[in-house]
Amino acid sequence: MNSTNNTPISEELNSPDTSANVRKSSLCKANSTCNKSATDVTLKQLFEQRTSDERAHNIAQKMLDNCSFSAHLGIELVDARAHYSVCKMKVESKHTNGHDTCHGGAIFSLADTTFAHLCNANNQVVVGHMCTIAYWQPALIGDELYAYAYESGVYGRSGSYRVEVTRGKNGDILAEFQGFSRALKGKMHF
Amino acid sequence: MNSTNNTPISEELNSPDTSANVRKSSLCKANSTCNKSATDVTLKQLFEQRTSDERAHNIAQKMLDNCSFSAHLGIELVDARAHYSVCKMKVESKHTNGHDTCHGGAIFSLADTTFAHLCNANNQVVVGHMCTIAYWQPALIGDELYAYAYESGVYGRSGSYRVEVTRGKNGDILAEFQGFSRALKGKMHF
Amino acid sequence: MNSTNNTPISEELNSPDTSANVRKSSLCKANSTCNKSATDVTLKQLFEQRTSDERAHNIAQKMLDNCSFSAHLGIELVDARAHYSVCKMKVESKHTNGHDTCHGGAIFSLADTTFAHLCNANNQVVVGHMCTIAYWQPALIGDELYAYAYESGVYGRSGSYRVEVTRGKNGDILAEFQGFSRALKGKMHF
Amino acid sequence: MNSTNNTPISEELNSPDTSANVRKSSLCKANSTCNKSATDVTLKQLFEQRTSDERAHNIAQKMLDNCSFSAHLGIELVDARAHYSVCKMKVESKHTNGHDTCHGGAIFSLADTTFAHLCNANNQVVVGHMCTIAYWQPALIGDELYAYAYESGVYGRSGSYRVEVTRGKNGDILAEFQGFSRALKGKMHF
Repeated sequence: MNSTNNTPISEELNSPDTSANVRKSSLCKANSTCNKSATDVTLKQLFEQRTSDERAHNIAQKMLDNCSFSAHLGIELVDARAHYSVCKMKVESKHTNGHDTCHGGAIFSLADTTFAHLCNANNQVVVGHMCTIAYWQPALIGDELYAYAYESGVYGRSGSYRVEVTRGKNGDILAEFQGFSRALKGKMHF
Repeated sequence: MNSTNNTPISEELNSPDTSANVRKSSLCKANSTCNKSATDVTLKQLFEQRTSDERAHNIAQKMLDNCSFSAHLGIELVDARAHYSVCKMKVESKHTNGHDTCHGGAIFSLADTTFAHLCNANNQVVVGHMCTIAYWQPALIGDELYAYAYESGVYGRSGSYRVEVTRGKNGDILAEFQGFSRALKGKMHF
Repeated sequence: MNSTNNTPISEELNSPDTSANVRKSSLCKANSTCNKSATDVTLKQLFEQRTSDERAHNIAQKMLDNCSFSAHLGIELVDARAHYSVCKMKVESKHTNGHDTCHGGAIFSLADTTFAHLCNANNQVVVGHMCTIAYWQPALIGDELYAYAYESGVYGRSGSYRVEVTRGKNGDILAEFQGFSRALKGKMHF
Repeated sequence: MNSTNNTPISEELNSPDTSANVRKSSLCKANSTCNKSATDVTLKQLFEQRTSDERAHNIAQKMLDNCSFSAHLGIELVDARAHYSVCKMKVESKHTNGHDTCHGGAIFSLADTTFAHLCNANNQVVVGHMCTIAYWQPALIGDELYAYAYESGVYGRSGSYRVEVTRGKNGDILAEFQGFSRALKGKMHF
């Protein structure tokens, strides 16, 4: 029995920090090693993380270099780590749909590319097989869109990822993307 | 009480046609007026359908003419009616993702454009706010992709649509797209 | 090149039936054998269909008999065929959420059960791994809900299905459900 | 231009903490006030948070008390705050589907109930209109399932939420649920 179930919130007012009982979403784990203070982390842990982050970065860059569709849309790599990946795209007239707003397909493509980098970060061939996207606000010409991809979980050969698309770096969320992936057999040889 | 509930299938073997009990999906209604034989349809019904089909066609053509993103991807209008819309796109190297397969974002964009035509066919400003896509087979350079959009239902200001993307006209389904729309206030004035 | 692309709709007005150019959704194929007139169908085809329909019916009945959750909710089998499955559930006070409307989870469960019958109709162990549901209208106490499940496509070990939940037999659509399945190794031995 | 775009990861090895550049997912904000150290938070902020948390808790409890479907399934309230909500349910034989695993509809219902508490936490009548669920592992008889709901974003009258269902408190994720809500006019009067 969980005590918070029965304790009125008001009785907890003496405690300045009730967050001790709040579980973090699985999406909050990005670079969890780094979240520890430097003294908690051994050099070995740091080195291993850097190695997997470096590999993820190299893979993302290679994937982007080979992806003519992303080049066509002007998608650029911002950051790529083992469990976290970021791309950006500036909305130009070529992305618009006639209402001077960015076509939903262009926003989806930015999110999908970032998702692809992240789910392939382990150097295994992984493909997206199912995605959802929700649009919250329109993107306009001149907006610089950032897509932040988070690993939610990997379960056997399946993976689950979330991408948030914002207007400007760390700006308002314009769209939320969810991607489900499946690992095929074979390495990417990056 | 539904008799099929209690009647063993085997007892129905005398009847050559058991389809009488099969309800059609709401997605089977495309041009249901036309599905009646010519003698069942009055001239008035035909004229009304043609009018709404013509309007849908004009709107789709105008939307496509104004959509620089679709032009950029090479999306073409094939057919547009009141409850049914079709576009196509030939996969070229500019659509690929480095594995010589079509980028998921390009397939999504084709489906999304076709969905947009259909949900705006009534000349009201309607926006997609949530979409899902499932990928079943890769599309390759040279493939001519067709997106067939069907209206599933309109409920107040919300609408639900399904798009099937095939390799070649009427070919294998490569992707299934589901789009949910919401009508804003205002006419498109097409 | 599709002629409908360039032919103004108005020019086709002489033809009483423009539906010749309308592709049917993949969801319209339920019992397509039966849709042919009796004289088009050989006895062999009829027998094979009856056999797979009978197996589907037996599997659905066995699954339902063993499913204590469905029994708990009052879900009943209405029809089950190789590519089509129907269940129903009467909304009682036990299904409500405090606003005297049916809990979304109860509607989902009805759709999910019907989906499970259909994707297992081939006597292979198949599990749902991803579902979406959209709610269009509330269900009220006394409503008899029908869930109609359609096979959209099977691609290797993956399958895609659509379920429409209606108020009353063949009534208004209250909810649309999409289910994606994956076949495991092994038979169900039904 | 973002400097992380051009700086090789390897050059950053001198810095023990590269997480400074990692943007947190919008889902990491649960009780962000509380995450500050006690000295950063004014008494006024604390009081306001407690007030909205208390209201959220009262609303969740009232909703659950009135929800006969949740009672029927054995769903219990664990925690409810302004941007975070938790329920639990013990898997019994009544939840199973014949394979001695928990029916997907029961898992969905637990997540949906928790989502409903959270999106109504502001005392406005809010309904879910679209949900997705992905199943990663089966739940078995005896498992105590926890559903943790997080607010992802509220955009005008629309809201977006994520629910993670775990085996045991803070255990492995069995299912991921995404819920989209829409506020109706009117207060709940709790």
